[in-house]
Parts: sequence; C-alpha cells; structure tokens
Amino acid sequence: MKNKASESFKALQDSICRDLEALDGLAHFEEDIWQRSGGGGGRTRVIQNGDVIEKGGVNFSSVYGEINDLMQKKLNMPKGEFYAAGISIVLHPKNPHMSIIHMNLRYFELNNKNSWFGGGIDVTPHYINNAEAKFFHKLLKETCDQFDSNYYPDFKKWADDYFYIPHRKETRGIGGIFFDNLSENDQFTLDQRLEFVKGIGNIFIPTYSYLVSNNKERSFNEQQKQWQLIRRGRYVEFNLIYDAGTKFGLESEGRIESILMSLPLQANWVYDFKPLPNSEEEKTLNSLKKNIDWIHEN
Amino acid sequence: MKNKASESFKALQDSICRDLEALDGLAHFEEDIWQRSGGGGGRTRVIQNGDVIEKGGVNFSSVYGEINDLMQKKLNMPKGEFYAAGISIVLHPKNPHMSIIHMNLRYFELNNKNSWFGGGIDVTPHYINNAEAKFFHKLLKETCDQFDSNYYPDFKKWADDYFYIPHRKETRGIGGIFFDNLSENDQFTLDQRLEFVKGIGNIFIPTYSYLVSNNKERSFNEQQKQWQLIRRGRYVEFNLIYDAGTKFGLESEGRIESILMSLPLQANWVYDFKPLPNSEEEKTLNSLKKNIDWIHEN
Repeated sequence: MKNKASESFKALQDSICRDLEALDGLAHFEEDIWQRSGGGGGRTRVIQNGDVIEKGGVNFSSVYGEINDLMQKKLNMPKGEFYAAGISIVLHPKNPHMSIIHMNLRYFELNNKNSWFGGGIDVTPHYINNAEAKFFHKLLKETCDQFDSNYYPDFKKWADDYFYIPHRKETRGIGGIFFDNLSENDQFTLDQRLEFVKGIGNIFIPTYSYLVSNNKERSFNEQQKQWQLIRRGRYVEFNLIYDAGTKFGLESEGRIESILMSLPLQANWVYDFKPLPNSEEEKTLNSLKKNIDWIHEN
Repeated sequence: MKNKASESFKALQDSICRDLEALDGLAHFEEDIWQRSGGGGGRTRVIQNGDVIEKGGVNFSSVYGEINDLMQKKLNMPKGEFYAAGISIVLHPKNPHMSIIHMNLRYFELNNKNSWFGGGIDVTPHYINNAEAKFFHKLLKETCDQFDSNYYPDFKKWADDYFYIPHRKETRGIGGIFFDNLSENDQFTLDQRLEFVKGIGNIFIPTYSYLVSNNKERSFNEQQKQWQLIRRGRYVEFNLIYDAGTKFGLESEGRIESILMSLPLQANWVYDFKPLPNSEEEKTLNSLKKNIDWIHEN
C-alpha cells in the first residue's frame, strides 16, 4: 500500500498542478526536489504572482524512518518506525473575493503494522458567499455519500472542530471535512479507503474552478484588500499555533520552506481591528461559527 | 511584594511611554484597560503609525486566580493559585535600519508561597550593526555587574538559547539577556531581586534612544523594506510557535489583542528567499548565531 498510496498522491499532484496552471493562466509551478536526512523526501511545487494565485504550493512528500525524541514528546508518538506519504495544498489568491483553499491527504504506517489514511479539505473565504459554501459542501456530501452516509456529517463536524482558532473564538472559514485513522476494518479494505481519499482529491479542481469563475473578474478596493491581509493574519495564527501538519513537519525535521509554503506572501495585524457595523466584513466575521448547515443556509 | 512589584511595573510603563512619545515625536499611545474573567486585568498601551515606530505596545498586566486545566497541561503548572504581574514591550520600527526591540519583566507567585522574578530584553536588527550591538551588550553587562558578575554571562547565554528559532537554525537577533526563577536566597532578598529587575527596565530607553539617534534619518530603498518584511515573518514565527509569554497569555485566557500586539503591522513570506552573496542581508543572516561576544566583536 505504501507504493500504491504514494503513486496515487504523485499522480494527483501532477494533475492538480496542470489544471491549476490552466485555471490561473499566467504563473507556472516551480519544482524543488528534496531529501530528508532521516529518510525519504519530497517534491515541492510552488506557484507565485499568478493572475489568480498570489502564492501557493502543491506539495508531495514521502518520509520515513525512526520516530525521534521530539516526535515522541511533542506528537505523542510511540517508539519505532514510521512511514508517511501525502499531498498538501494551500493557495492564497490575489483577489480578496476569492477564497483561500487547503487540502491534505495522507497515508501513515507505524512499525509496518498499523496503517491508515487521513486528510481534509477546507475553504477560507475573506468574504463568505453562501452560494459558494453550498456548492462546496454539496460536492463534499455527494462524494462522501458514495462511500458511507455517516462520512459527511461526521467529517464535517470534525472539520468544524479542527479548523478552529480557539483564542479568536472563530472558525478558520466555512470548514469542509477532516478525517483521520481510516484503517482497514469489517466494512472497508485499505484499498477502499484509498478510493475514498482519491475521491476527495478529485473534488479539489471542480471546487477551485467554480470559485475562480465566480470571482476572477470581480474588482476590489483598497479597504477590501486590507481586510484580506488581516484575515490572512488569522490563517498564519492557525497554521503556526494549531495546525497538526505544520507541527508534524517541524518535529519530524521536514524541509522548512516546503512546510511553511502555507503562509501567505503578506499578512497584516492591525491592533484591535473591528469591522464596521453591518458591513460585509462584519457579516463574514459573524458567520465564522461551528455547526452551520451550509447546504441549507440561504 | 505583589503590590510593590506591580506598582514598579506600572511606574515603568508610565515613564517608558512618556519617553517613547518624545523619541517618536509624532504618534501617541492609546490605552485600553481590560479585565480578565478569571481574575485581574491589564493596561494595554499601543502606538501605531509613528515617525519611528510603525506599531508597538507597552503593556502592563496583573492577573491571578486558579490555575486552569490548560495551564496545567500545556504549561506544566501545578494545581493551585497563581499571581503574575509584568510589563511587556515590543516595538516594530518603520525604518529597516532600525531594530525591533522587546522587553519583558515579570513577578510570579504560586500558591502564595513560591515567588520569583523573571524577564528579558533582546534586540532584533533587520541589519546587524556591530557598534549598536556592542553598545547594547555593554550597557547590559554594566547593569548586571552591579548585582552579580555571573549575571551577564549566564543571562546572555540564556537569551541565546531562548530567543532562538530552531526550525530556521537562526537566533532571533543579537540576543540580550533572559532570566527566570530569581527567588529569595542566601545572597539576595526579594527586594534586591526587584531592584535588579528595575535596573534592567532602566536600560530600555537609553538603548532605544541610541538606536533612534543612529538610524532615524537614514534613508532606505524598496529592497531593504522587503528584507525587513521577511525578517518580520521570522519574528511572527518565533512569537507564535515558541514564545513563552504568548503561550502563557493564550493558555491563561488573557486579552488576545494585548498578547498579540507583539505582531508587526505587516509581515511577508517569500518562498525560499535567499539573500544575494556578500550582501548586507547575507552578512546579517550569517551573524544570527549563538555565543557571539558582541562586546568584543569588531
């Protein structure tokens, strides 16, 4: 399965990069191949200064080796050997009407016996658009329902809890799905788990394509750009304080520039910034809550 | 001592704010008084868009109450009651030739029996200037030596280890001093510990004043500004991932905007940025190392 999962993630990286270049129409990915001293390495692909994408990465990595002291202490991992392969994507758009999007899909093995899939995809609008949120969540539900009717409700709730910034009492955006520990059981083989993960991977481009076509031509003003930069500050706070993938990358001594490609080109922190009453900014802020049924929200 | 320490920190806040307004010459501090639901509160003073200071804060807080579950789990604190009073300063300058400066001084009590002082002051230049580093470290050494000749070497080493960004393998800047757990012992009373802490507090304005007079009128170009924004990204990484004061603030449920006043108005992350060979930027990067004897460095 190591090989099968890893090849699937690489193929997904190839097709997503190709489609994103077509959608952006201007910028191209640069590739950096890297090796990890403890074992394994990755294929980092970063895109910058595009027509749609200001900065983003579509990274593949496959790392393995001994579980070091930091991983045991900080990530609560047991002693032994690990293998982790995955694809990680974060795209920060130029236009504040366009959303930030993130997806991660991964396969994990511990001591060559426990193995499981995990992953997640979530959308972080600077301005929440209910029609877009509905489109995205419907697509997620339809895909999840092909495998198990509990997946969408369970994994949506998991995303609400995971993509949350406790110190701000805000969700990161409109959520999506998050799942982990999908191992072989009575109901599913590991091959079927991989099919599910690939199914989620195939949602990425239709979602991004829909968001691009909705927003690419929309104009924006200086004040909307400022709001985007402040929202990006929240994204930085989440990624550096809470994100499990960032923590795993840092503690397992992955390549720093690949791990931190998730950070935006620019982020701002204005002391005690509060949006104007009844503004679009305030409306978005008021919707950064858990447990919103985006499919039926008007 | 609670009252004595707390009044000293407030008096220091007053005098530092007054002197900084005079040094800046343009901007004024805004004050926000806040209460902490678990007990205590603070007096946050933030300055923005000055002639020298782009964004900064000089905060006093005095918080107390029960040690909550998060503090026990994440900060390794015992069950019981705590009291913490302190002053925290971070100033981000407009001009990239000017340094970022940070100081924190604090008094802590556990269960009304263990009590100690802690603190630190460090300077983060965007461009290291050896004469400035020497001035600052000499002032630190002279002040420390009035109390104990081991203080400067011990606390400088502590600062090198504390103000360090492991994932970048870089110190945050030219260091300074860091100390903790200065409790009553055979050599010093708690009052003498307070006198030391006040002595360090009195270094702040002479240091900042010297840096301002050296750099206020220096011109800078777009490329130097870009470098400043990238270095600020490192400051954000340190503060959100490693800084103990930020962690304490978040876990003890302090006021978020007061805790995160340490973040700059704007920070940038350019993928895999590398300074040009032999540039001033590369020289600075090469000096972000532990164990440099700044007093005798030429």
